[in-house]
Amino acid sequence: MADRRPLVTITGASGLIGGILADRFAASYRLRLLDRAPLPGRLGQTVDLEDLPGLERAVAGADAIVHLAAATSVAAAWPEVLGSNVVGTYHVLEAARMAGVPRVVFASSNHVVGMYERDWASAAERPRSPTPLDHLAPPRPDSLYGVSKGFGELLCRYYAEAHDLRVVCLRIGTVLRSNDPRDPAPPGFDAWAAMPWEVRIRGTWLSHRDCAELFRCALEADVRFEVAYGVSDVPHRFWDLEHARRTLGYVARDRWPDETLALDASSPR
Amino acid sequence: MADRRPLVTITGASGLIGGILADRFAASYRLRLLDRAPLPGRLGQTVDLEDLPGLERAVAGADAIVHLAAATSVAAAWPEVLGSNVVGTYHVLEAARMAGVPRVVFASSNHVVGMYERDWASAAERPRSPTPLDHLAPPRPDSLYGVSKGFGELLCRYYAEAHDLRVVCLRIGTVLRSNDPRDPAPPGFDAWAAMPWEVRIRGTWLSHRDCAELFRCALEADVRFEVAYGVSDVPHRFWDLEHARRTLGYVARDRWPDETLALDASSPR
Repeated sequence: MADRRPLVTITGASGLIGGILADRFAASYRLRLLDRAPLPGRLGQTVDLEDLPGLERAVAGADAIVHLAAATSVAAAWPEVLGSNVVGTYHVLEAARMAGVPRVVFASSNHVVGMYERDWASAAERPRSPTPLDHLAPPRPDSLYGVSKGFGELLCRYYAEAHDLRVVCLRIGTVLRSNDPRDPAPPGFDAWAAMPWEVRIRGTWLSHRDCAELFRCALEADVRFEVAYGVSDVPHRFWDLEHARRTLGYVARDRWPDETLALDASSPR
Repeated sequence: MADRRPLVTITGASGLIGGILADRFAASYRLRLLDRAPLPGRLGQTVDLEDLPGLERAVAGADAIVHLAAATSVAAAWPEVLGSNVVGTYHVLEAARMAGVPRVVFASSNHVVGMYERDWASAAERPRSPTPLDHLAPPRPDSLYGVSKGFGELLCRYYAEAHDLRVVCLRIGTVLRSNDPRDPAPPGFDAWAAMPWEVRIRGTWLSHRDCAELFRCALEADVRFEVAYGVSDVPHRFWDLEHARRTLGYVARDRWPDETLALDASSPR
């Protein structure tokens, strides 16, 4: 009998989130994993975001694209941001349109609104606004990376409304390779962060299981276009989760592992 | 005695708005007119938006940049939008930052929110929303051109907040070469418009005098970053002018020339 599970194509499948989705989606979806480099230990196709005809062939027949491939560093310089995030995202949406793929989930970023955090930090406020930052807050990118993800959201909205795609943009929280939010800051964090790691991660952690659930909800939701944040059940959340719950059905299941430790970040481990 | 008038550099000075500003700013500012092609009948410099070092030299010493150079057609294809509007605007802001130019006025566009118009048109509503569309309405671009102008606004905000520039983004109404809004639609209008020309122009017309005043206000305003619409005193405005008045001090002075004619667009001229 034919396999009737939806065919989901994942770009940037070799990355951290790509690996999480490849593992956890294997039962629910047929997967076509794309990356610019061969995927060690997985069946996949190599295709570069610069190659629009190649992308169109690679996404043909898919029911949805999860677009993860990007320059993912907040410190990424303009040439990389331009090529991977601006041109690359255009090519993915254009390939979807040309190939008739009806749905795209775009890995956006909280760095589209990262400048709000700097205000909170410089005002010596706790990193929780009285009202969490929601999808309607005017974008205030904190980096060229954040600008490029904001561009991707604009482009997604245009394709959704002009070309009849369904698109969900996810402003993803902090996903850690170890999945343990008590780990020390990853390299490079201090270069852009406005708050100490131990403070910020208590607002932004997204577990592997919740990450996969967030993307699953985005793939299944009956919406034309949405932007939503995704974090786990963290003690000091400062992004809105209500919109993700209402429009996508996303509910965080993983709780902060050790509240006592988390509340006193200065205590020894 | 030294000329103490501020030095304003204008990119895309050969265009319609460039010519309007060059004529009307000559008394208040020292002007440095830039364009990729030589400016007939005017003193100017040729510089291409692709040429970042050339741009940095061309804006050095200026008190402000008015950035008009762009692919200005709503129907512009991706390669042109990418080169002129995405990369070009990055180069202008980066040149401003490197050269220490403290202020930029960016010619944005109502096409950043153009998809709202299509809703009104398809709902057979009059082209006036009960509340005019303001600067806080979530962007809904109607074209790749609109996406690129929304990108420019995001980039401007990043530069304003991260690099201490003052930036005003103007969502400019419809400026006509003849300056007469009773003229027929310009070529290409029907390709994208959701409303008949005679209906839309009654909401969007911006006279030459008001256009120059809008840019003058943006150059003088004591603001870090703003987005504002600009139209003349039109009979069926559907974009907010209150924010431009409050933050920039802009007040439209030119009124629709013939209200009777305008209210019945089907009547013979």
